[in-house]
Amino acid sequence: MVLGKDIAIIKGNIAFTPSFGQLNIAENSFVVIQGKKVKGIYRALPAEYRNIPVTDYQDALIIPGFVDLHFHAPQFANRGLGFDLELLPWLENYTFPEEAKFQDVTYAQAVYKKVVSALWQWGTTRVVFFGTIHKAATAKLMELLATAGLGGYVGKVNMDRNSPGILMETTGQSLLDTEMFIKETIGRYELVKPIITPRFVPTCSPELMSGIARLAMQYNLPVQSHLSENTGEIAWVRELHPECQNYASVYDQFGLFGKQPTVMAHCIYNDDAELALMAKNRVYVAHCPYSNSNLASGIAPVRKCIEQGIPVGLGSDVAGGHEVAMSRVMSMAIEVSKLKWLASGKKEKFLTIPEALYLATKGGGSFFGKVGSFEAGYDFDALVIDDSSLEVAASNRYSVEDRLSRFIYIGDHHNIIARYVAGKKIEKPQF
Amino acid sequence: MVLGKDIAIIKGNIAFTPSFGQLNIAENSFVVIQGKKVKGIYRALPAEYRNIPVTDYQDALIIPGFVDLHFHAPQFANRGLGFDLELLPWLENYTFPEEAKFQDVTYAQAVYKKVVSALWQWGTTRVVFFGTIHKAATAKLMELLATAGLGGYVGKVNMDRNSPGILMETTGQSLLDTEMFIKETIGRYELVKPIITPRFVPTCSPELMSGIARLAMQYNLPVQSHLSENTGEIAWVRELHPECQNYASVYDQFGLFGKQPTVMAHCIYNDDAELALMAKNRVYVAHCPYSNSNLASGIAPVRKCIEQGIPVGLGSDVAGGHEVAMSRVMSMAIEVSKLKWLASGKKEKFLTIPEALYLATKGGGSFFGKVGSFEAGYDFDALVIDDSSLEVAASNRYSVEDRLSRFIYIGDHHNIIARYVAGKKIEKPQF
Repeated sequence: MVLGKDIAIIKGNIAFTPSFGQLNIAENSFVVIQGKKVKGIYRALPAEYRNIPVTDYQDALIIPGFVDLHFHAPQFANRGLGFDLELLPWLENYTFPEEAKFQDVTYAQAVYKKVVSALWQWGTTRVVFFGTIHKAATAKLMELLATAGLGGYVGKVNMDRNSPGILMETTGQSLLDTEMFIKETIGRYELVKPIITPRFVPTCSPELMSGIARLAMQYNLPVQSHLSENTGEIAWVRELHPECQNYASVYDQFGLFGKQPTVMAHCIYNDDAELALMAKNRVYVAHCPYSNSNLASGIAPVRKCIEQGIPVGLGSDVAGGHEVAMSRVMSMAIEVSKLKWLASGKKEKFLTIPEALYLATKGGGSFFGKVGSFEAGYDFDALVIDDSSLEVAASNRYSVEDRLSRFIYIGDHHNIIARYVAGKKIEKPQF
Repeated sequence: MVLGKDIAIIKGNIAFTPSFGQLNIAENSFVVIQGKKVKGIYRALPAEYRNIPVTDYQDALIIPGFVDLHFHAPQFANRGLGFDLELLPWLENYTFPEEAKFQDVTYAQAVYKKVVSALWQWGTTRVVFFGTIHKAATAKLMELLATAGLGGYVGKVNMDRNSPGILMETTGQSLLDTEMFIKETIGRYELVKPIITPRFVPTCSPELMSGIARLAMQYNLPVQSHLSENTGEIAWVRELHPECQNYASVYDQFGLFGKQPTVMAHCIYNDDAELALMAKNRVYVAHCPYSNSNLASGIAPVRKCIEQGIPVGLGSDVAGGHEVAMSRVMSMAIEVSKLKWLASGKKEKFLTIPEALYLATKGGGSFFGKVGSFEAGYDFDALVIDDSSLEVAASNRYSVEDRLSRFIYIGDHHNIIARYVAGKKIEKPQF
């Protein structure tokens, strides 16, 4: 069967979003996968594939795997804790003490196994992780993610100023550890790679930011950080860097704002100059609606960003966000966009369901390359959704679009019956 | 064992909210229940109870059962559907066609079994239901709720104007059906009773409102409806009733605003005069944060209501809300209150976790009498929470308050291992 070499075919009700707002649906159709990639979607299978076995998911939905652009893996044990506080006291009282524990690789391994299992469970196939300052724990996270067959960028965090003693690095050690971490991990896994991860401006000295920017260039690595989450944080950055026009330009002056692919979490309060710079430099927004509500940060102007040409994806922001489920992050993104629409005098249109699905798949997926869609040439990352448990009465017949909407709003991990990453079916992690 | 007659004792980590903002915790303590009611909570069991068997839930949490003040039972199949629309087109396109199906009692029974099962599953022990205009279907809902052992008020809906033909009653028939429905159900169940249910002002003529107000007085029944959910709706009411000062005074002039215990869903846009009238007449707010976000209605001023002496509980508002889980309605209530806090220039303080728990238990429970707390004399409605599946690493020790917070944010029905209503343990409905 030379013809069938490397070819796999699955069948079901296929839905994906080739662009923001566009939902393509192919009912009872075939996805032909060649190796890791989508070759095509067909309502009737072309003759050349007639002798290749089809995995027929029958009436199930097949959608792209979810992409989570912002997840603090070491904060997993803190989900749902401390939400009576705002960002800065929450960091001090909950986040930093927990992250300090990750000096102990045994503790890290125990938590990170649960993190990776939760991603698998909820259908997140690609993730951008913050680790901690600890390179051994962070390398362990990468190993677990790769073992599970999921894809991701994983960052050893840098922080050499304004940090609690237990998490404070010297500039030299931070740079040294980062480079060792990169060398150790950069070639080790196919779908899991390191990412340069300054925590945020207030915890990174100019020397550190310049140094890690050099590493990003030298090793050709992407960059992630936080931007304009909270007005107190922004005022602090202004105090620390009165020489800079705004928060974004601090990252920019040190070479951390788009020279390499860059994603910034939150971006709630960016001014017009910052937005223009993000569009110009193709800096991604990781929109984190749960976190931004839990920590009383605000509502990011998602549509405005997109209209200005800034790429946007979604982030759970565990543990500012308590939800791992990107389906729920989607519905929350829609909900807060509706409150923003009202607050704007009904000017800034709220997000629709197809738009939110785009953000959770191709929007964030493009940070990984051709990921998050079923167009030809895209990595085949997919979830197979059996939503039959969501049916209420046999006399109700929902359209594929309505079924998708119901899964997003009221489905859960029980409805995800298969997961694929880069063409490969991924089983439940055995740890 | 005369002493033990009617006495039951359960043990665990007990938490409840005797007032808004106050969280009482009794670790490793005993609840003594006499018949339906709490007799007392003891850290050490008094000698008189020493020979009575104790149901020891060990390290589990024991909290009051959840109360849902607003739930459209016939919209259950519509959860997660049509959320790209605002209230009025959503009603026309999704809600009314679905409700029309409830003329068929067989269809109603199939859906209502799932509704009642979902309430049981998610730990809602008392509910205020909207049914449809159909008295047979609505009586069936009451029967199923009572069979399951849950408590509730259930309303046959009235609508005789501005309604689609399939749901339009004549005034006379609406009154006649309502009285028949009341007579048939009022004495039938101990914990399930009828409630007078004008849909909202736009669909009820003055004659109908006056007539059902008379029935409420005659049969001593509570009243539920909708109030000030949406600015378009408010403008419509103003057009229909230019003689009235505001929306609330329309209900008031027809005797439907607090002469009997009354609960109004939403109450987002009430003016000061309406709030004063609600406080004076002890009219409840059913705060429905999911629905108010999904339908882009707004954020109700919960704290302002409470500060003015208006009683407030929470509502899922299925299917404007997609979540049956009152734990999630709680976290959403907190989340939107934080966005409101920001929008108010940080003046209107956001809700804390103990405050949200109060709203979901005693706040709404007081509509049923002494319900929603573990103070002596309260009906013993309780949930036993095994949150061990939420633990992340053995080295993490959470306080009872933190465990409660984690259950609210990240727990689900799997964590609810026992439910009690009025002193009785309620098993999974066998339908």
